[in-house]
Amino acid sequence: MNLPTPARSGPAPEIDAAAWLNTAGPLTLHGLRGQVVFLHAFQMLCPACVSHGLPQASAVHERFAGQGLAVVGLHTVFEHHAAMGIEALTAFVHEYRLRFPIAIDRPGGDGPVPVTMRRYGFRGTPSVALVDHRGLLRMSHFGRADDLALGAMIGRLLLERERDG
Amino acid sequence: MNLPTPARSGPAPEIDAAAWLNTAGPLTLHGLRGQVVFLHAFQMLCPACVSHGLPQASAVHERFAGQGLAVVGLHTVFEHHAAMGIEALTAFVHEYRLRFPIAIDRPGGDGPVPVTMRRYGFRGTPSVALVDHRGLLRMSHFGRADDLALGAMIGRLLLERERDG
Amino acid sequence: MNLPTPARSGPAPEIDAAAWLNTAGPLTLHGLRGQVVFLHAFQMLCPACVSHGLPQASAVHERFAGQGLAVVGLHTVFEHHAAMGIEALTAFVHEYRLRFPIAIDRPGGDGPVPVTMRRYGFRGTPSVALVDHRGLLRMSHFGRADDLALGAMIGRLLLERERDG
Amino acid sequence: MNLPTPARSGPAPEIDAAAWLNTAGPLTLHGLRGQVVFLHAFQMLCPACVSHGLPQASAVHERFAGQGLAVVGLHTVFEHHAAMGIEALTAFVHEYRLRFPIAIDRPGGDGPVPVTMRRYGFRGTPSVALVDHRGLLRMSHFGRADDLALGAMIGRLLLERERDG
Repeated sequence: MNLPTPARSGPAPEIDAAAWLNTAGPLTLHGLRGQVVFLHAFQMLCPACVSHGLPQASAVHERFAGQGLAVVGLHTVFEHHAAMGIEALTAFVHEYRLRFPIAIDRPGGDGPVPVTMRRYGFRGTPSVALVDHRGLLRMSHFGRADDLALGAMIGRLLLERERDG
Repeated sequence: MNLPTPARSGPAPEIDAAAWLNTAGPLTLHGLRGQVVFLHAFQMLCPACVSHGLPQASAVHERFAGQGLAVVGLHTVFEHHAAMGIEALTAFVHEYRLRFPIAIDRPGGDGPVPVTMRRYGFRGTPSVALVDHRGLLRMSHFGRADDLALGAMIGRLLLERERDG
Repeated sequence: MNLPTPARSGPAPEIDAAAWLNTAGPLTLHGLRGQVVFLHAFQMLCPACVSHGLPQASAVHERFAGQGLAVVGLHTVFEHHAAMGIEALTAFVHEYRLRFPIAIDRPGGDGPVPVTMRRYGFRGTPSVALVDHRGLLRMSHFGRADDLALGAMIGRLLLERERDG
Repeated sequence: MNLPTPARSGPAPEIDAAAWLNTAGPLTLHGLRGQVVFLHAFQMLCPACVSHGLPQASAVHERFAGQGLAVVGLHTVFEHHAAMGIEALTAFVHEYRLRFPIAIDRPGGDGPVPVTMRRYGFRGTPSVALVDHRGLLRMSHFGRADDLALGAMIGRLLLERERDG
């Protein structure tokens, strides 16, 4: 993970979900405004998501949820669609004890890549993104994200939020 | 893993598979007679199978296949049946680059536990078993199997095979 | 690691070193004022320092040195003194390829615990501390420090530094 | 680790130790005849010995000692001699909780490489060797030794011992 120099970027694209797990109702980045959002894009049959990305997302959730940060999983299926439907994902979430809200990215219609994944330009899974409390996209990374670097960006964004609050 | 003192046990129960992956045709323990067989029972949505059991089975396959030992995977689905059908398993095997033959255990009919799993009395997944070159069940273990202990049992059975050959 | 709620604490105690490795001359926290300082207290024969603490200190050094943060190792020998002299430490630093400056904590005189370790009240090794750009002690932790939590504190202190700069 | 095809080799060279730790008196391979001997050559300041070799030797000791196998450590200092004397090694053995007998290889006199290390032709540390119950050297390996392969060789030699017993 080579995090780009933190830079003010544009507004984070909204999530377009076909369904949600682990939440009473649909979430939106707009509704989460005021919190830092850690977005983790994964596929349940992606080995690096299972071995690294999802455990990291769970660790971020355990450590920072309720302290001004929300973790949102995004199931961005772009291959093996038949094997990763909602029933399979529900079993997966149960077995891997994932506790954070998970959006099922809306199928793209004219191609294998789903809508939200395209909006963010994620090149594959796992990918992560950080959205600040004002709704700006501040970091986007494809591949294994280093804990120290990710933590540093989270610490920075949480302090920005405090200062503005 | 506490391997029991190696003891001559009875004949290993035959595999009853609904289908096979990674092999030109169905295999049987009877047909593998003369080789040591390492049997790995797993479910594709079982976290300990993914993190430990399957990498170990792949390592055993890479190290010992063609030296008198055959690795056979056994997909023993006893929960979340709808999420772990053959199409899902095929995608999983592709993504995790599993190279050894895999039997899909035959559904049990009158309960969730499939036929071969019941024959072996496996208490869950991951489970492993070793069958010697004469077809006798020599080791059966539920849970994480230690590499040193498993290796020692394999080394012993391979030497027994050589001596009888 | 349970990091305390970030709180403004008092001034960080100065380092009192008998000797330094990996630096042209002695360093002081006073001289490092203006940078965030990550202080890692270790002993070369402490297993958790070798397996976790020192690799973490090296990772912090690689990632953040030159970006407003300085890593300083502190060899706080409080047991097996004869086995951990400067000659042994020099060989250790060479073999483990440690690149950051390392202070050899000054022997305490009237007890086994050296001077700087006593000033900080470290309960053992590994211990870590973070000093902000104004010289205030902002975090002190005994034991394994979590990368995400440590990263978050570093990110926070680096932003404070930027805002004041 | 690519273990060579197990082959009957010559007699294992005897250990020449300047001193012993973790044992009431000196040991010899001759005195251990009848047991399989796992010999682990290490240096206390060798990173791969600390992270991999010694934990593996401890695991072999815990699993197989008393079942016809003896683990013997061999401290083969060939660099940084002043930093790895018997006092330093004693502290190291205490901190890392090593339980098996450890021979301090006798200094070579006319070069940095000690006597037993030269007899075995070890190219560095960590190195491992296996001696069968008849005193023959059956395996010698420089570098990280794979648990499955090492276990297989141990299992083989233990069965040979049983058959001859």
